[in-house]
Amino acid sequence: MAGITIVEIAKRCGVGVSTVSRAINDHSDINPETKKRILEVIKETGYVPNNSARNLKRTDAKCIAVLVKGITNPFFTPMIQIAEQEAENRKYALVLRHVEAYEDELDVALELEKEKRLRGIIFMGGSSRHSSSKIKQLNVPVVFATIGSEVSEKLSKKEYSTVSVDDMLESRKMTEYLIGLGHKKIAILSEGSDKPSIVKLRLEGYIEALKANGIEINKNLIRLVDKRIYSMENGYQTTKALIESGEEFSALYCISDVLAVGALRAFADAGIRVPEDVSVAGFDGQDISRFCVPRLTTVRQPLEDISKATMKLLFDIIDGESGHRHIIFPGELIEGESTRKRS
Amino acid sequence: MAGITIVEIAKRCGVGVSTVSRAINDHSDINPETKKRILEVIKETGYVPNNSARNLKRTDAKCIAVLVKGITNPFFTPMIQIAEQEAENRKYALVLRHVEAYEDELDVALELEKEKRLRGIIFMGGSSRHSSSKIKQLNVPVVFATIGSEVSEKLSKKEYSTVSVDDMLESRKMTEYLIGLGHKKIAILSEGSDKPSIVKLRLEGYIEALKANGIEINKNLIRLVDKRIYSMENGYQTTKALIESGEEFSALYCISDVLAVGALRAFADAGIRVPEDVSVAGFDGQDISRFCVPRLTTVRQPLEDISKATMKLLFDIIDGESGHRHIIFPGELIEGESTRKRS
Repeated sequence: MAGITIVEIAKRCGVGVSTVSRAINDHSDINPETKKRILEVIKETGYVPNNSARNLKRTDAKCIAVLVKGITNPFFTPMIQIAEQEAENRKYALVLRHVEAYEDELDVALELEKEKRLRGIIFMGGSSRHSSSKIKQLNVPVVFATIGSEVSEKLSKKEYSTVSVDDMLESRKMTEYLIGLGHKKIAILSEGSDKPSIVKLRLEGYIEALKANGIEINKNLIRLVDKRIYSMENGYQTTKALIESGEEFSALYCISDVLAVGALRAFADAGIRVPEDVSVAGFDGQDISRFCVPRLTTVRQPLEDISKATMKLLFDIIDGESGHRHIIFPGELIEGESTRKRS
Repeated sequence: MAGITIVEIAKRCGVGVSTVSRAINDHSDINPETKKRILEVIKETGYVPNNSARNLKRTDAKCIAVLVKGITNPFFTPMIQIAEQEAENRKYALVLRHVEAYEDELDVALELEKEKRLRGIIFMGGSSRHSSSKIKQLNVPVVFATIGSEVSEKLSKKEYSTVSVDDMLESRKMTEYLIGLGHKKIAILSEGSDKPSIVKLRLEGYIEALKANGIEINKNLIRLVDKRIYSMENGYQTTKALIESGEEFSALYCISDVLAVGALRAFADAGIRVPEDVSVAGFDGQDISRFCVPRLTTVRQPLEDISKATMKLLFDIIDGESGHRHIIFPGELIEGESTRKRS
């Protein structure tokens, strides 16, 4: 039966060519009975599918997508590197898509799903609350990495996975570290958005720590950047405004290292010494925290572990070896040179 | 003629289904005569191609790829953002692929081209010399962004495009700026690889400047990092080794801002003041150069202009409105706080 074509196969099975194609390429959008029949006919005839077309389809089929919100954040760089490596090890193509600030990452995922034959989606960054109906619409497993453990209030946690640190807890620990150094007037740089996010969780951790230690919340010390928390410029401008407001504080806790680097610059420009005059702390444990002058006191997130666990979990779910899970990694408080006992 | 299928069209034209598909999807791999005939038959029959399949193919067809070498470099972030925006404006899908250090970006491009229906490729980062035969094998136009203006010695410059600054000239200008401040013992942090690259061009610019000013080259002052020039850790370790070598110098020029940030940290750890004891200069003009303490003297590359020009040029070539071109943007020497007149 040499030279048989896909057209012949389609005729024999009484189906269209596209249905044969779907059967060959292991497409989900086909009646299982029909697929079985087609594959039997293919076996009988010895038909060899056109290889290049098949590979093209296959590339589309075995694919996972990584959707990253916040492209200006070097934070995700090591995570993406590991994701790419792990995908390659599994012979999956990896589609990396940056989600713009104005886009809803779930809408982007739903759109991507139509275009590509996805097997799974990883979300990095962005909102930590999503529409349950949109998550349900996705036909492939989703894992949210570094964006908290509760992504939808309405949806059962059995319908999605998360891998992250406990942002509220780690933030509370950092605030309590500053309190332990004798600081009571602790300012915070956080984000102004009303949307639930890990940033909000970090702000809540700060408020919890103050309350638990009997320190009154001073709203004038809670400073919100406009949008991007991974912008040095935002850290600089917001700290400058805080200094110029004349409000007293002995420590500034920034909910990202990038904001903290901008803060260090603003203090330098104002002739305020860190840590002699004011203590500064960050969050994330990015490279810059080890190299800026002074070195930052920060909470290190184990990003490599988080990324590896995310990939393993996603592939386990795809392979039917695991259900959805919620994995929490501990953060590590790193003592730098930017904080000291209140004098 | 309602209900006619692609199989019918194929029969009428005496070709295979895949050929009809190629004609519909404007694929390059088809005889123009055959394509014309197929499209005429399609018009006659009123056949409407299956939309979802067609869109899927189209997504693959109208696509450009951006290949980035050096993912740890935030340098490319603003360039990628602009590329994504411009691609969307043109209704092209953008495939972003990070090239690992051990991979040849041309091999990756050739591989991508097989899998995807690419219309054009942009290379960012990596080597500035490539095999002419590999470039010739690519069936789509290529633009090299920020990697020099001569990418292949053997290949005519009419066969590829480049958009960049003149790395050798800009580097020479920075070195001459330091010489103008009275520095004669100027150390440099560059890359150790033998491969031609913009990094090599920057090193050549440094050597040219010294020679033109009658300053003898001291090999002990040319310090090469192992691999990644966008690693603060590499900048730190290499500067530390330079300090410990006891070799005298009054200025250190780092061929990337990221290396310079590591250098600033190494000087701080050694109790050496910048710029009082030593001047430090960077290259690139990244965000960190404006926020580190002290602010870096650096050469700013106009990355937004470069990225916009790259995209416009690629689309112009795709649309047949331009041949290959080589566009050079001027850099801007920014005087920070990290350099001063030699005392």
